[in-house]
Amino acid sequence: MTTAYEPNKVMATGKYDVIGTRPIRHDGADKVTGRAKYGADIQLNGLLQGKILRSPHAHAIIKSIDTSKAEKLPGVFAVVTGKDLPKSKAGDTADFGLGPQPMKYLRDNAIASDKVLYEGHAVAAVAAINAHVAEEAIALIDVKYEVLPPVLTAPEGIKSTGNAILHSDLRTMEGGAPKSGKTNVASRFQHKMGDIKKGFKEADVVIEREFNTATVHQGYIEPQNVTAVWNNDGRLHIWISTQGPFEYRKALSLALGLPISDVKVTPMEIGGGFGGKFPLYHEAAAALLSKKANRPVKIVMSRREVFEGTGPTPGSYIKVKLGAKKNGKIIAAQGYLAYEAGAYPGSPVDAAGMCIFTAYDIPNVVIDGADVVVNKPKTAAYRAPGATNAAFATETVLDEIADKLKIDPIDIRLMNAAKEGTRRADGPVFPKVGCIEVLEAMKNHPHYKTPLKGKNVGRGIAVGFWFNAGLQSSATVSVNADGTINLVEGNPDIGGSRASLAMQAAEVLTIRAEDVHPSITDTDNIGFTFGTGGSRTTFATGWAVYEAANDVKRQLIERAAKIWGVKAKDIELSKGYFKSKTDSELKMSFKDLSGQLNETGGPVLGRGTVNPPGVGGAFAGNIVDVEVDPETGKTQVKRFTVVQDAGKAVHPSYVEGQMQGGSVQGVGWGLTEEYFYNQKGQMANSSLLDYRLMTSYDLPMIDTVIVEVPNPGHPYGVRGVGEVNIVPPPAALANAIYDAVGVRMDRLPMNPAAVMEATWEQKRGKSGAKAKATKKK
Amino acid sequence: MTTAYEPNKVMATGKYDVIGTRPIRHDGADKVTGRAKYGADIQLNGLLQGKILRSPHAHAIIKSIDTSKAEKLPGVFAVVTGKDLPKSKAGDTADFGLGPQPMKYLRDNAIASDKVLYEGHAVAAVAAINAHVAEEAIALIDVKYEVLPPVLTAPEGIKSTGNAILHSDLRTMEGGAPKSGKTNVASRFQHKMGDIKKGFKEADVVIEREFNTATVHQGYIEPQNVTAVWNNDGRLHIWISTQGPFEYRKALSLALGLPISDVKVTPMEIGGGFGGKFPLYHEAAAALLSKKANRPVKIVMSRREVFEGTGPTPGSYIKVKLGAKKNGKIIAAQGYLAYEAGAYPGSPVDAAGMCIFTAYDIPNVVIDGADVVVNKPKTAAYRAPGATNAAFATETVLDEIADKLKIDPIDIRLMNAAKEGTRRADGPVFPKVGCIEVLEAMKNHPHYKTPLKGKNVGRGIAVGFWFNAGLQSSATVSVNADGTINLVEGNPDIGGSRASLAMQAAEVLTIRAEDVHPSITDTDNIGFTFGTGGSRTTFATGWAVYEAANDVKRQLIERAAKIWGVKAKDIELSKGYFKSKTDSELKMSFKDLSGQLNETGGPVLGRGTVNPPGVGGAFAGNIVDVEVDPETGKTQVKRFTVVQDAGKAVHPSYVEGQMQGGSVQGVGWGLTEEYFYNQKGQMANSSLLDYRLMTSYDLPMIDTVIVEVPNPGHPYGVRGVGEVNIVPPPAALANAIYDAVGVRMDRLPMNPAAVMEATWEQKRGKSGAKAKATKKK
Repeated sequence: MTTAYEPNKVMATGKYDVIGTRPIRHDGADKVTGRAKYGADIQLNGLLQGKILRSPHAHAIIKSIDTSKAEKLPGVFAVVTGKDLPKSKAGDTADFGLGPQPMKYLRDNAIASDKVLYEGHAVAAVAAINAHVAEEAIALIDVKYEVLPPVLTAPEGIKSTGNAILHSDLRTMEGGAPKSGKTNVASRFQHKMGDIKKGFKEADVVIEREFNTATVHQGYIEPQNVTAVWNNDGRLHIWISTQGPFEYRKALSLALGLPISDVKVTPMEIGGGFGGKFPLYHEAAAALLSKKANRPVKIVMSRREVFEGTGPTPGSYIKVKLGAKKNGKIIAAQGYLAYEAGAYPGSPVDAAGMCIFTAYDIPNVVIDGADVVVNKPKTAAYRAPGATNAAFATETVLDEIADKLKIDPIDIRLMNAAKEGTRRADGPVFPKVGCIEVLEAMKNHPHYKTPLKGKNVGRGIAVGFWFNAGLQSSATVSVNADGTINLVEGNPDIGGSRASLAMQAAEVLTIRAEDVHPSITDTDNIGFTFGTGGSRTTFATGWAVYEAANDVKRQLIERAAKIWGVKAKDIELSKGYFKSKTDSELKMSFKDLSGQLNETGGPVLGRGTVNPPGVGGAFAGNIVDVEVDPETGKTQVKRFTVVQDAGKAVHPSYVEGQMQGGSVQGVGWGLTEEYFYNQKGQMANSSLLDYRLMTSYDLPMIDTVIVEVPNPGHPYGVRGVGEVNIVPPPAALANAIYDAVGVRMDRLPMNPAAVMEATWEQKRGKSGAKAKATKKK
Repeated sequence: MTTAYEPNKVMATGKYDVIGTRPIRHDGADKVTGRAKYGADIQLNGLLQGKILRSPHAHAIIKSIDTSKAEKLPGVFAVVTGKDLPKSKAGDTADFGLGPQPMKYLRDNAIASDKVLYEGHAVAAVAAINAHVAEEAIALIDVKYEVLPPVLTAPEGIKSTGNAILHSDLRTMEGGAPKSGKTNVASRFQHKMGDIKKGFKEADVVIEREFNTATVHQGYIEPQNVTAVWNNDGRLHIWISTQGPFEYRKALSLALGLPISDVKVTPMEIGGGFGGKFPLYHEAAAALLSKKANRPVKIVMSRREVFEGTGPTPGSYIKVKLGAKKNGKIIAAQGYLAYEAGAYPGSPVDAAGMCIFTAYDIPNVVIDGADVVVNKPKTAAYRAPGATNAAFATETVLDEIADKLKIDPIDIRLMNAAKEGTRRADGPVFPKVGCIEVLEAMKNHPHYKTPLKGKNVGRGIAVGFWFNAGLQSSATVSVNADGTINLVEGNPDIGGSRASLAMQAAEVLTIRAEDVHPSITDTDNIGFTFGTGGSRTTFATGWAVYEAANDVKRQLIERAAKIWGVKAKDIELSKGYFKSKTDSELKMSFKDLSGQLNETGGPVLGRGTVNPPGVGGAFAGNIVDVEVDPETGKTQVKRFTVVQDAGKAVHPSYVEGQMQGGSVQGVGWGLTEEYFYNQKGQMANSSLLDYRLMTSYDLPMIDTVIVEVPNPGHPYGVRGVGEVNIVPPPAALANAIYDAVGVRMDRLPMNPAAVMEATWEQKRGKSGAKAKATKKK
């Protein structure tokens, strides 16, 4: 029943009644009045509070764990350690889309068994009558460690030997096969296209630079939380703040050795995720504690635990070399990416390798990547994972080339921009994409045409690419007698997806968005649905909703045919009315027909499931003006414009919100955010006072321009809008800083210290940046 | 997509792998460990407790209500009265299947406006910080009443005039039109067949008797409860112990003037209902309190409130006259039924009129009925509503005829039994039914063949009919990757319907019942589904589940066809395997295919909706042995056998449970239960100490015999089993009492006082019963 997908056929008509309008979101009242239910709101009879004992060491062998004192403390109901998880056999693997990984890694990251691999690594857990007793109890657990040297960056990890090796069983995967020898390099890959040597040889200008970026956190405001009931019938029920209920179902089933259908996950409202609320952390411990105590157990992380015990996006080392002809045409690009995976394999270096040069049509390309384990929390996804680091490198080198060739930075990008038919170095050929349209919108924006004024001010631009995800989704739609519909789906609503999904159903059925009542349900109550991530919800679940609504439409037309005694094919639904195409007397409103379902065969319920092809990649670009204080190195953002190709913006306000939110995070990543580690690998700034997120005081209003180049692979042209907006900001800021004070930045964050250091390095001649302090437009 | 229904074609094959087995119920662990969530378990932030002020008078005009003192009490957040409900306009009606009733009646029964019509009638409500403050506050509400004379029985009500009239706007509906004149008779009907005069003229024996039965309560153990949140976006969410979430959705929408889709009802687990948890009571008050207080409000009834403030099944006055030939053939039957509707129209007298003679094939019949409002709580449904009262009359008169003609009471019933083709006096012609099979099973039962022993012991038999309900249902089924399925439906599980529905899905998909995970969801999350009542769930929702499972089966076969590159029509599903009909090499387990859905097109989700024809009427019969103490009149049940036609018993244990449960309630109705009113119309026994329910100490083990005459109108032959078992017990007991001590009982309950009174009346010659004290078999 799924709508047929024909590559490059534009399914979207572009003329809509509901899509593109701005109705109030369905969860608005609940969220502004505090009635929305978050994980921490869960109350159950007999609920215990859990706490996690975490490692103070970045790298150590666990010699022993003595929980006896904790167990004896009055008010303690259960204590668990890694021994309470099923024992991982040598061949057991778990696959979360990175290829099979040892099951031991999944379980050890939940509760360490033999080693701790990062500060904050969970070692034991306690369930007690209240949080105070639980805290007291974890302080009574005696763990003996043998401390090992920590590995804190990818370049260090690549060179590691001896007791700096994190996993004795880890072998580098390369070309699908493991290489021999203990290592911290989990995998290597290479993408090649054309003849890179020839390319650089023919280039008139070649620039090569190295970059280092810090580990940064997604910075969601709501900490991770979980409530678990391991029931007496063997089924586990958890309530959780998550982006992916079905991902948690799978992870818990693997970690605990349960059939997936014995795990039920109820997603609560979510206070931000940005990719960080997919992986398994304290949930397995909560489940084990519940089983042992035979009671419900809740665990809510502190902010310190969020920083130290959950997955940030990785720090990275990147080298980029670009070669261009005098006219600006780039003919060769080489990249090397070494990303920190954290304690277990799986950094987004693969994705980075697919994005690093993808905004451009370059004939000769080589991209090498390495995934390196280090003694930091296992990396997690964060908005367009991996792409921001990579764009920071490419877009600043390209800026340098444009500067050298005296070509406008937008013009050089337009000249090289990827378009329909461009082959990516990793293989795929682009269908219709909006890179050129984004660049043209930037060029035509008043911001770009307004001259800069003042001293130490500069303007930078950059663009970024993210491919977005498709994956499976399910939805059902049922019709109420009052002419409204109920929509059931399984994607936690982070950024307005109740609205964007409801609007697609409303468009199909020619009713108002307000007449759709969306519900987000648990894993027992809807078909399999991938999580809210990869910018996929409005695209893929939207398509499932489109199918379910069309299933309803077909059935309603059959009912109308039955009532009128005509053929279904002669009836159409238009503007809220069922009409005969042949007899103008036959006309009935959606509401009228909805009230006649029981008499005409029973309720009408539609279903839709998809695993859609036709994912539409997205481009975004920034124009940013800064003022840099040359005395302190502080960069102040003065004006910021973000342009993004949404394919089709289903609800423009929430698209704009995504664009602004991603931009703010990109600016934070660019200017202030970082995991600040001491030499022992302990994080020195694990609070929101010391880990510096952008606030509204730091930023101007962010202007948004939605570009709409419909995705030919979606019924309404949707591409997905949640991620690509985080990609260009650090690069655009770096280019603006250069424009302001003539310093080429090669590290993130570009905080005052970094800008000052770069300035001094440039003066000492270390940096490749040329003096340009006097340049002003 | 609904399976075609062909009358009298037996769809059921009778050979099943899952249906007819006895797996453990899916909600078993939750219920025996106390983890199942009932309405009283709901906890919400800021939750207030509500209490209802109820009328002490059975019939009074409300002159004034002063809530000012209550409102000023610290801790009180809101006070509401009938004025807070929307004003009912003259023409506004509400239809709950009894034809349109004035909207005012629905609202006034929730909170009285101008008059109170029964003791316990809600007058005002308070929400406070806790229940104690709320109780204190309702005591501060000053209501001035003008007390009127109460009307307490149907015969009284028929004669009422002047200030004994309950509703000044009520006119008797007869033949579809209102008659003129103020009255307490809400409606009258007549069913006629043949020539009744001729029938009685040709009869060799004619017996006519009058009967009176008391008001009895369903006696569910869990009191009514509700938690309401009237949200700031205008939507009302209630959590409730209910049989019918969609019925509450409709009732609240009508009472409060909301679109139905603005009401969301979440059914919690239910501690018994038996028909009594459908109507609107304190839910509207809870909603209004929540709106006024802008907080969640919970109300839990006390037992006294359950008795006095919710709907019992009505007391009745019935006259039955039967005429038979000497050979036992009944040729004429006349019945008159006057049922107490309670305070507002709508007793089950209509249903009683459709059941009173329906077990028999009688050529000449007249049935007259009257629905009479009285000053008691508005009657509610109770297992086979109305039929028990009626069967008590018919079955005891028939026993008297058999006795007179010296025909075995089972033989006389077999001779006259309804069968396929028998026309009912109310119109319909029976399809295949199991009356004869039930009677034969009774006759062949060892119980019936075992001679009675001892003094003052007697045996009685009786049969009963109930037509059962169909109505609309919806269900979805989705496939998990581990080869299990999730089933979503909307019927609160009272008697094991999770199991009986899961088993039908399992049968279609040839998997185990344990591999189905059923969920009961709220009104936003599943298509329209009538409530759990009318013995309909396993029949109608079972059929929706059958359709949803077949939808899944079709899709899975298509996937297998895709994988194998063969045609779907060449694949069958049998015993857990998909197999090619043409190539024996092509075979794949259900589990294996379930693991390959994502790669073959996405998740598989099936839907089913029905409004099924082919409802199968059901018969049940009892054999009961009693011992009557002639000194006290106390009747002790010594042995009890219930025989019932289930059509097909999907889960025999739960069918037997229904048969035993209905029998116990029927015995309680027959022997001990009654609303005991004083002359002011105040209930004198509104606690479970004084209202005498049967307990396990009062009863022997109840033997069950399931007869299976498949319903030709259901894919698996299901008829529905929840109700008919309550119909025969009072009659069978009366016949047994007669057999024991020679007294014909003409009233319910037949408690010691009633038996002694009947004995004395008989001695005084008032009763028609003949002396038979010496009879012994």
